[in-house]
Amino acid sequence: MRLEKFISEMAKAGFEGAIVSPGANLYYLTGLHIHEAGERLTVLVVNAEGEYMLLAPSLYENVIENFPATFWRDGENPYHRLSWILGELKLSEGRLLIENTMRADWLINILKLGNGRFELYPLDLVTRELRMRKDRHEIEAMKHAAKAVDRVFEEILGWDLLGMRERDLALKIELAVRELSDGISFEPIVASGENAANPHHAPGDRRLRKGDLVILDYGAKWNGYCSDITRTIAIGQPSEKLLEIYEVVKEAQENAYRAVREGIPAREVDRAARETIAKAGYGEYFTHRTGHGLGLDVHEEPYIGPDSETVLENGMTFTIEPGIYIPGLGGVRIEDDVVVQDGRGKRLTRAERELIRL
Amino acid sequence: MRLEKFISEMAKAGFEGAIVSPGANLYYLTGLHIHEAGERLTVLVVNAEGEYMLLAPSLYENVIENFPATFWRDGENPYHRLSWILGELKLSEGRLLIENTMRADWLINILKLGNGRFELYPLDLVTRELRMRKDRHEIEAMKHAAKAVDRVFEEILGWDLLGMRERDLALKIELAVRELSDGISFEPIVASGENAANPHHAPGDRRLRKGDLVILDYGAKWNGYCSDITRTIAIGQPSEKLLEIYEVVKEAQENAYRAVREGIPAREVDRAARETIAKAGYGEYFTHRTGHGLGLDVHEEPYIGPDSETVLENGMTFTIEPGIYIPGLGGVRIEDDVVVQDGRGKRLTRAERELIRL
Repeated sequence: MRLEKFISEMAKAGFEGAIVSPGANLYYLTGLHIHEAGERLTVLVVNAEGEYMLLAPSLYENVIENFPATFWRDGENPYHRLSWILGELKLSEGRLLIENTMRADWLINILKLGNGRFELYPLDLVTRELRMRKDRHEIEAMKHAAKAVDRVFEEILGWDLLGMRERDLALKIELAVRELSDGISFEPIVASGENAANPHHAPGDRRLRKGDLVILDYGAKWNGYCSDITRTIAIGQPSEKLLEIYEVVKEAQENAYRAVREGIPAREVDRAARETIAKAGYGEYFTHRTGHGLGLDVHEEPYIGPDSETVLENGMTFTIEPGIYIPGLGGVRIEDDVVVQDGRGKRLTRAERELIRL
Repeated sequence: MRLEKFISEMAKAGFEGAIVSPGANLYYLTGLHIHEAGERLTVLVVNAEGEYMLLAPSLYENVIENFPATFWRDGENPYHRLSWILGELKLSEGRLLIENTMRADWLINILKLGNGRFELYPLDLVTRELRMRKDRHEIEAMKHAAKAVDRVFEEILGWDLLGMRERDLALKIELAVRELSDGISFEPIVASGENAANPHHAPGDRRLRKGDLVILDYGAKWNGYCSDITRTIAIGQPSEKLLEIYEVVKEAQENAYRAVREGIPAREVDRAARETIAKAGYGEYFTHRTGHGLGLDVHEEPYIGPDSETVLENGMTFTIEPGIYIPGLGGVRIEDDVVVQDGRGKRLTRAERELIRL
């Protein structure tokens, strides 16, 4: 069970306990679906002896089964209950892990309970190591999430894109993803023409025109796990220059993919992409990392950048997404999700990577 | 200027300074549009002498104008920069306000910079008092947000609802809201038939049937400000019992609305609704507060419950939304957004409140 593995790693690392608020880590550790707790205190408290207790508002009373839990009611001060749990689990002092995304007002109240005797550390010190290595159930969920975005790409190719506004296309993509999955893993990016030169472009009112390259970057969720794909398509006939950078990015993406190997540091994957682009003379226009880990979060470990020391292992999942962005002209990015399997990289997203002209 | 007013209130309340991460408070205080900072440290630091400085990642460098700011780059440790700012603003110790929703991992690092010399308090101790009283620009934005949901209600009445799944109707409502506003203020709720007995129901696969009452609860955003409306409609001919509770809820909502008056405690508004429902014999089935404040957040001060001591003032905005929920049978809720103006309540949402049968 994941929670037991976590407890043993936590103990090994010298922490007395952990306080975990709702989010990807709580789901990962317990499998409990606690989504929007809002402002109502909801935390899992764990100690290094392997004891644990969930504290949740009473509206979860009929939802949580087969898990040690105590519920508080509106009107009650939930921190009195938390104080009691901390006492029961012998956690009134010491080194505690705290969920990274916990609200500051909860943490301020927890600090008061500790009265200066807590030493706090971010939870991901322990969970990132665990979550980086996916088991086969996790990889199965990621395959489903990847299949959904592949299918949506095929749908997109059937749409009448010429003259469509970026924001309308982004909405159509969102709806198509929602139809085939549990929802989007992030707001779709549609960046056309000169807008494609900005990797952070927010879809706007620009309409797709002949000669545009259009970057489409979107993702789906399946059982909590994310996919994340980017394809760049052409409307009509783009300039020679744009066609050239497309081929460079495609080659860089393929080279990075082929570089994936169990036992090498992640930066080697980045280097394969970066060198391909630099050799073609576009090094200064590749302005971000080659990729990021993918799982319950759409950005997690292992990151794939020039300084990434993480040694790749079977079961790790990440994106490979080099790009070239030329201000005033446009841009290209191609992104796949990859899992390390049997020592090599294996694509989870499989949509066409040759340039498609519509 | 709001930031100056905030600084003066902060100083009066005896705080040395504040650290504000992105969210409704930062927007309220500065007007800066900093939406998804994600994990990259982004904070406004303010001291009681009226000095302030924004620290943001370099990707905001071209976005933020006419505001004292310093930017950090990927690869740099942003907490060194924050430490320098705290030093410049003479905030290396003392009582500090911290944005309630700040990520715990940021706060843990800030605590380290303070080395035990900070005493932390939630920011809303000061901001909730300011934000509770809306100025006319804010009320104008809320009127627009309210008009959008009124119009969507008219659209809904033209749709062919019989046999539609709750989740599909929720999606159609979401798209209609997005078309007329800056987006939804929360995920729409569609609760039909016996599902309407659960005030927290998540729209599912149930199809709308003849004889159903259907609760529709949704909201829009306009310039950051929220609306939030609930209407209950009938498909075909509902039972006498359901028709009866509809009339009780409608009367309770009207009585609560008429009770709104400058200078009375908010609990008097709750009492007007609660007494109407209790007198009709349904007291035990009204299981939540009568309303909540509304503004940049969809739930904020002043809350309208049996224990709400806040004295109503002109410019306060909140919902009035009594309901009756009978397990196994169904439910009714009617919700309007209200502003206190010239000493009385004034509805911002104006959609039809008589029962509509489709």
